[in-house]
Amino acid sequence: MRDQDIVGAYLSRLHAEISANRDGEVATYIPELGRVDPDKFGICAVTIDGQVYCTGDWDSEVSIQSVSKPFMYGAALSEHGRERVLEHVGVEPTGEMFNAIVLDEATNRPFNPMVNAGAIATSELMTLDDRSDSTARMLDIMSRFAGRDLDIDTSVFRSEHDTGHRNRAIAYMMLNTAMIRRAPEDVLDLYFKQCAVLVNCRDLAVMAATLAAHGRNPMTGDRVIAPDNVRDVLSVMASCGMYDYAGQWGFDVGLPAKSGVSGLIGAVVPGQLGLAVFSPRLDAVGNSVRGMEVCRRFAEDFGLHSFSERTDLRSVIRREYRSGEIQSRNVRDGREIDIIRRDATEFAVLDLQGPLFFGAMERVARRVGALVSKGVREIALDFRRVALVDTGGLALFVRLVDALGGTGVTLHLAEVRYRDSLSGLVDLVTDDADGVLKIVDDVDGALADYENRVIAKAGLTQETQKLALSDHAVFEGLDAGEIAQLQSIAGTLSFAPGEVMLKAGDDAKAFLTVARGTASVTVPLGPERARRVASIGPGQAIGEMALLDGGKRSANIVADGPVLAYIFSVESIRALSDDSPRIMEKILGNMVLSLTHRLRRTNDELSAME
Amino acid sequence: MRDQDIVGAYLSRLHAEISANRDGEVATYIPELGRVDPDKFGICAVTIDGQVYCTGDWDSEVSIQSVSKPFMYGAALSEHGRERVLEHVGVEPTGEMFNAIVLDEATNRPFNPMVNAGAIATSELMTLDDRSDSTARMLDIMSRFAGRDLDIDTSVFRSEHDTGHRNRAIAYMMLNTAMIRRAPEDVLDLYFKQCAVLVNCRDLAVMAATLAAHGRNPMTGDRVIAPDNVRDVLSVMASCGMYDYAGQWGFDVGLPAKSGVSGLIGAVVPGQLGLAVFSPRLDAVGNSVRGMEVCRRFAEDFGLHSFSERTDLRSVIRREYRSGEIQSRNVRDGREIDIIRRDATEFAVLDLQGPLFFGAMERVARRVGALVSKGVREIALDFRRVALVDTGGLALFVRLVDALGGTGVTLHLAEVRYRDSLSGLVDLVTDDADGVLKIVDDVDGALADYENRVIAKAGLTQETQKLALSDHAVFEGLDAGEIAQLQSIAGTLSFAPGEVMLKAGDDAKAFLTVARGTASVTVPLGPERARRVASIGPGQAIGEMALLDGGKRSANIVADGPVLAYIFSVESIRALSDDSPRIMEKILGNMVLSLTHRLRRTNDELSAME
Repeated sequence: MRDQDIVGAYLSRLHAEISANRDGEVATYIPELGRVDPDKFGICAVTIDGQVYCTGDWDSEVSIQSVSKPFMYGAALSEHGRERVLEHVGVEPTGEMFNAIVLDEATNRPFNPMVNAGAIATSELMTLDDRSDSTARMLDIMSRFAGRDLDIDTSVFRSEHDTGHRNRAIAYMMLNTAMIRRAPEDVLDLYFKQCAVLVNCRDLAVMAATLAAHGRNPMTGDRVIAPDNVRDVLSVMASCGMYDYAGQWGFDVGLPAKSGVSGLIGAVVPGQLGLAVFSPRLDAVGNSVRGMEVCRRFAEDFGLHSFSERTDLRSVIRREYRSGEIQSRNVRDGREIDIIRRDATEFAVLDLQGPLFFGAMERVARRVGALVSKGVREIALDFRRVALVDTGGLALFVRLVDALGGTGVTLHLAEVRYRDSLSGLVDLVTDDADGVLKIVDDVDGALADYENRVIAKAGLTQETQKLALSDHAVFEGLDAGEIAQLQSIAGTLSFAPGEVMLKAGDDAKAFLTVARGTASVTVPLGPERARRVASIGPGQAIGEMALLDGGKRSANIVADGPVLAYIFSVESIRALSDDSPRIMEKILGNMVLSLTHRLRRTNDELSAME
Repeated sequence: MRDQDIVGAYLSRLHAEISANRDGEVATYIPELGRVDPDKFGICAVTIDGQVYCTGDWDSEVSIQSVSKPFMYGAALSEHGRERVLEHVGVEPTGEMFNAIVLDEATNRPFNPMVNAGAIATSELMTLDDRSDSTARMLDIMSRFAGRDLDIDTSVFRSEHDTGHRNRAIAYMMLNTAMIRRAPEDVLDLYFKQCAVLVNCRDLAVMAATLAAHGRNPMTGDRVIAPDNVRDVLSVMASCGMYDYAGQWGFDVGLPAKSGVSGLIGAVVPGQLGLAVFSPRLDAVGNSVRGMEVCRRFAEDFGLHSFSERTDLRSVIRREYRSGEIQSRNVRDGREIDIIRRDATEFAVLDLQGPLFFGAMERVARRVGALVSKGVREIALDFRRVALVDTGGLALFVRLVDALGGTGVTLHLAEVRYRDSLSGLVDLVTDDADGVLKIVDDVDGALADYENRVIAKAGLTQETQKLALSDHAVFEGLDAGEIAQLQSIAGTLSFAPGEVMLKAGDDAKAFLTVARGTASVTVPLGPERARRVASIGPGQAIGEMALLDGGKRSANIVADGPVLAYIFSVESIRALSDDSPRIMEKILGNMVLSLTHRLRRTNDELSAME
């Protein structure tokens, strides 16, 4: 099975089945169109991540004709802005044939950019003083949509130029009402050339996929037009793209699409893929018979209709927990844990997932409000599993931040750094005069910081005295004589803030216990990022596995601030244990207890992540 | 901050701002409509999970008028099916006023169900022989959409009945062309009554939210119409719902909506919420001036347009790993681990997330194809984080299964049981003649089973001999004399398949080692489900924490098959260690090694889940 087989095989079979359909007539209004092989039939689909599925005569080139209209409309929106473009062309379906000479009575505007009058008005907006400049820019735009250099079929252009009198009439009528102001022949030169651009199914599928990907070409990565322009293009394709079959198309197929008299149809599944079909025989309305059938079947078979049941935003809050229920990775002593359990009640974590558009963010905002009304003062929002916050989600989030202004509530935004799709959230901090938002690396850091503040508030300050050996958890239960024996082999080491105390991969020849200060255990996540997986505080041991297997260090341990540590060489402690086996038994017992505690907590975290 | 504050406050401010707009005229074509207070202005939004946001005169009741049309259309589709309904009413926008007396020339059909002619044709489909039966059924349908019992404003009904001659003309014209066959007065009785149903903004917002929730009323849970019917209703609302402003509406607002002459607009954000506005002053086209403004602003502020950038399916494969890279939780001895590392290369896991519609499933199918072409023979698909597989996703998955038929490749479907939204996947197994699909509880079980088969194939059979004490990992390094001492205090216990060996919460008074057979460590996930977190095999210890702290058992351990175990009472082993401290030191050292190994693996899993 090749990786193309599923969708590729589907399209091939669809192609075979629909090939039997020979209904319709090839367009003949210009001679060049009539010369095509009427049996040609190609299909191509391109996903927004650039996977290409082609079948049949996908590589037959043909003039793009009316399918050029949405792309030039997008370019005009990008060049002149929506307001200016709307002055020249409307967005209402006509209920008339595509080449009708009809303008809106009230405004003189062509009804929409998908009929010839509207497309010619659009072309005027894209006409430059020099014809070859206009042509070059048009070709550049079309080529960027297609991801390769496209060219013009000069005989098609010549033929349309020589016989396109109806379009000439439309242009002059618009000149008459001052809807266009440039010389009609200059405008028509560009219009006929854009219709004569040669594409194959693959080109058109990439062009459609660029719209599906909100304006970014999936093959080249080129941002051709902005998402807002794409939205407008898709809107008119949906309502006016299929001539006067638009209503039934929207009902049956429900995809923005555009057809052309050369037998091409380009359709867009927003956020998913672009689809192109070429088959020259047209129905009475002017749409490719087989092309319609391919789109209809494809949409039906895979639920691609715009209004198919699809989204599910009920799961946006993946998990919610409160401080106390779950503690930071900072290792605490018993007194600290008691204080946390008793006092650390005003911190909550919402673990979010999925794309955060309006409906999803509404759930988040609502839950934040409910937590605040229950007395929660700090909420960490974990964006680790959020791929996207759209403009609507961001707009609602801004309102949430505003509403929290002056309440003293803090929102910690975790895992939003270095994430292009979440940069909008980071930018909010600049405007956050009330200090509601804090950017944090991860939830654990924010939670640990909160716990530290709670502990400090309870009057329990972090130990600044150097701890005696007897206070170390790993030496618990040793009697005074045994401690004295240990003392005799202990060295001391000082570390500066940020200094690496143990390095992953080094030989393990000694173990340490922390007498003063704290250190972090980190694992690398990438070249510039590391995740802190544990904190080591006074009284705790580091690298104690050296006692058992020697071997290599398994993690980096870095001093948070100044750290003072005791160091015991494996050699000396082994010698000691030969004389006094009880010492080693007690140390190992303490280690088993500590490891079991850590393992249980890690298992709890794993279960919680289910 | 109350939990309603964000969206509620937004709507209140929007209400205040738009209140200043007094443009437009109250409809007067029937006297009752003209008597309304023109300044009335209410807004209500209801999410698909039933959160209600109301502001202004949301509780003012008014006759629903044309906003009844999409709901009766949905009911007709539900009652008669799409094909029959399409024979009587089309789906094309008209470009004419709502009360135009115009039918499609080719078919005699009314253009669409949102204009009066189409709505009357729809009402005929819902007319019963007895008028009171028709009325009762219509009220029942509307009430189910609204989630409360609705009633008819008899004076509005009477007034429309007495003055609705234009509608009478439309009905007779359709009788003339045999488009309707029932007595026009019977049909009009129902039509006028459906228009006279009294609703407030909250009712209409719930009705719209029922469409947003694909046909299930979010307040009552009642499935009013099927998702396919909803799709069709939304399609015609999108293209024809706003009279002849539909094109501009689709461009600016991009939401399926319907307006009525009483000043109501109901709009649907599919998958998110229903919105209702009431303000009686209408523009020239017949749409509520303020209502349009509310919808436009709301859609703009929160990116609700149908073609806004929204979905992101790039993250559907959350994580991929291969056997060897990650092992099952089954604890293995060194020989087994060597075989797994060497031979267990044909199993892959795809951890999926998000809704699996077509574009997302296409990624999955493509990746499965790529893995198979690299020699992978078994793939576990983890659906734990998949909330929904839509019809399109399921259709593509069926094709994937077909393509794998006869290749000998197996797909393990994990975490699909007991999940209503994934029942379609489970149903596939029935039709899976080639045995491609296997339903498994979780990925770990499938992986463990695969490893067992690999180990068996390598000729290394699971130990069926009773292990000697010296072969137990926890006793490694003990000399013959020490083993003999242990032997003297060891008892043996037999367990039947499924028997609980240790129970969470029990006092820990002894520890066990497994001499023959295997057991599972499980943690409960719910009343009927448990997750296996580890497997214990021959040579491994159970409940060894008893040695250190006594305390309570922390998990359930259940015999997989017949199990033979050694048991050591804490009391006797403490006595032994008083005489021979080296024994305890070695046992504890072995335990530290084993715990460290487990902790590192659990940490790896946690990191992998980032």
